[in-house]
Amino acid sequence: MVDFNSLFSTNAHGMKRSEIRELLKIINRPEVISFAGGLPAAKLFPVQEIREVTDYILETEGRKALQYGSTEGDGRLIKLVIEHMAKDGGIKATADNIIVVTASQQSLDLVPKILLNPNDIVLVEEPSYVGALQAIVSYGAQAVPVAIDKDGLKMDQLEKTIQDIHKRGDGGRLKMVYTIPDFQNPSGITMSLERRKALVELAEKYNFLILEDTPYRQLRYTGESVAPIYALDSYGRTISLFTFSKIFCPGFRLGWVVAPKPIIEKLVIAKQATDLCTAPFTQAITYEFLKRGYLDQQIKKIVVDYREQRDFMLAALEREMPKMEGLTWTKPDGGLFLWVTLPERINTRDLFHMAIENNVAYVVGDAFHPQGECKNSMRLNFSYPTKEQIDKGIKSLANVVKIYDENLRKGKVSTTVTP
Amino acid sequence: MVDFNSLFSTNAHGMKRSEIRELLKIINRPEVISFAGGLPAAKLFPVQEIREVTDYILETEGRKALQYGSTEGDGRLIKLVIEHMAKDGGIKATADNIIVVTASQQSLDLVPKILLNPNDIVLVEEPSYVGALQAIVSYGAQAVPVAIDKDGLKMDQLEKTIQDIHKRGDGGRLKMVYTIPDFQNPSGITMSLERRKALVELAEKYNFLILEDTPYRQLRYTGESVAPIYALDSYGRTISLFTFSKIFCPGFRLGWVVAPKPIIEKLVIAKQATDLCTAPFTQAITYEFLKRGYLDQQIKKIVVDYREQRDFMLAALEREMPKMEGLTWTKPDGGLFLWVTLPERINTRDLFHMAIENNVAYVVGDAFHPQGECKNSMRLNFSYPTKEQIDKGIKSLANVVKIYDENLRKGKVSTTVTP
Repeated sequence: MVDFNSLFSTNAHGMKRSEIRELLKIINRPEVISFAGGLPAAKLFPVQEIREVTDYILETEGRKALQYGSTEGDGRLIKLVIEHMAKDGGIKATADNIIVVTASQQSLDLVPKILLNPNDIVLVEEPSYVGALQAIVSYGAQAVPVAIDKDGLKMDQLEKTIQDIHKRGDGGRLKMVYTIPDFQNPSGITMSLERRKALVELAEKYNFLILEDTPYRQLRYTGESVAPIYALDSYGRTISLFTFSKIFCPGFRLGWVVAPKPIIEKLVIAKQATDLCTAPFTQAITYEFLKRGYLDQQIKKIVVDYREQRDFMLAALEREMPKMEGLTWTKPDGGLFLWVTLPERINTRDLFHMAIENNVAYVVGDAFHPQGECKNSMRLNFSYPTKEQIDKGIKSLANVVKIYDENLRKGKVSTTVTP
Repeated sequence: MVDFNSLFSTNAHGMKRSEIRELLKIINRPEVISFAGGLPAAKLFPVQEIREVTDYILETEGRKALQYGSTEGDGRLIKLVIEHMAKDGGIKATADNIIVVTASQQSLDLVPKILLNPNDIVLVEEPSYVGALQAIVSYGAQAVPVAIDKDGLKMDQLEKTIQDIHKRGDGGRLKMVYTIPDFQNPSGITMSLERRKALVELAEKYNFLILEDTPYRQLRYTGESVAPIYALDSYGRTISLFTFSKIFCPGFRLGWVVAPKPIIEKLVIAKQATDLCTAPFTQAITYEFLKRGYLDQQIKKIVVDYREQRDFMLAALEREMPKMEGLTWTKPDGGLFLWVTLPERINTRDLFHMAIENNVAYVVGDAFHPQGECKNSMRLNFSYPTKEQIDKGIKSLANVVKIYDENLRKGKVSTTVTP
């Protein structure tokens, strides 16, 4: 027998399977209503438009679309995403500021790759996106959490954390702040304009970069759009990640990064060694899709549908959840998720087993925390389930919370109730 | 101004642009005949079959193909590649041994990621594929070259290198041997069956793994197929990389890895943090393409065409090249490349400028060497240029070699001739 453990890298020894994915496997029973995923609603995918555009691309430029392409990406698509960003949030960029990537998770791997040495520090929102935390840790760096409130990152706590890092002589290791400013995953919270501006000033003051992740930015259902950090940053310290996964479809694995030129240059080299180039085939299809104005149309369609879904889930929570001190949930203006906080006595990981037995699933809060806090929270997704499922699932979840809490109060330990 | 150099990782400071890509930019003039690329011939892409299959997929399972997929890959495609490998080279594998990847370059990034610590050692063929060397170096590991002859890696030299590594106490750092056993890039050489078997025994004896890269394996034009190392290895020490780029099309970015289960498990986790999953859209299309028997048909078509191209280039070299002691070239049984060795006095990097002026391009030999040896060699690609271009380009190249050598003999330094 080969002793693979003697051969794996330190990196590999530290690699753990995504908790969310493992949980999702458990709940792969058809009777379980899942609020755990982060999937867009497949029923909204513009299948007919994609058929039309794909056939056109194969007919008119098939040989080019099936060949290797440049690492930077399809220049025509880059031109259109520049226009798209200018319209959406006032981002000014040229082709030198863009690289097309194999969707955002690739950016979340490449950016740490070019910036992080082992033991470097990235400040992250608490809670934050698991996939980003994994990527940071996979380079041996530390993800240090900073609390958020209803306006995003708490600036006083952020600066205090930064000062502490500098005081202990680790200022040079603080490379960036990772934030999802719009309808954050998992909390659904949006960072206010003031805090975005303050974050940019802190980045300049303490010489770090801002990694702005914007997968849901264009999925706003209520309220006014807030300018992207990239557009507010006159110092050139912001790297912004965009993806087509939530506004178009995830099955193409397509996104882009906008960043200062020196960052893009390093990302291009890093990407060369990682996958040479993003698929020219899906880039060409997406270019044509944008050119025909289908993307704006698609975003409008998604916004109408997800707004209803969000409202439906919020109404169900309001109606079904027990009145209980400390039980609250966010009311996001967009995105795919809301975040439920339970009284501190309720551990959502314990609760999970009972929930599954009652055919409803969510993601446990501590999965979104680098040190496993947020034990009394859960993330609920409202984009994927049907309204009927939301109705039934929230009823079931409310019931589970009620019974679990009663058991707790009676001194019954939940885990013995549901082994 | 932001001082990005103070923020980049050590890794990023060491990142260099691919020399080949930079050279290819220089020669992006339409009048230059390029033997430098490694592109498959776009005229052979099965555009009509892809149109047919793609439309079928979008019609019958569009919503699924456009959604996220599993990190391991589409189970249906995995089943068909297992059958494909069993037929081609007698590889026995189950789904536990496979991960679908975003083409082979991704495997060349992920395998080092799970195996290599900084200063670890990978033994590579001299010369070898640049993209693999870059990936190895990007993890801070060393690529140590071992000479090849007409039968591949020289086993005596390989074992001596291994023994030297063990003698100086670095045995634990020797993680793998990287080899392209069939129609190697850049040399076109195929490793003999005996040497493959001997390599497997060495891996067991000295506890390392074998990374077998097989992008051209099925593009054999003459001679008998040699069993893949994976099929010969009863110890389970081989990781084999396959890609659809050369036998189908590169524009999908699609390949797969076959390896022992513990390796696949780590690759799955590493891939999760890297790009979540390979595009379900192109996986579904490729599955349907294979299911309809189009891949076998396509490989047959390519083999007929490339065989002619190879023969045409070999004939042109024979006819045009000056008779000169030390001027030789390989006669590969398959693949995309042949390797020209010139007399030691001729530096192909100097020669390159004169070649470009005479409208012909190749890749300089030292680009394929971790320490920049092979200075008197060049790689020629015969799959991409037309026959007319091969004819004209080889004439031009032969002429340049002749003149350059005459200049050398007259004491004129080439670089002053072509500034």
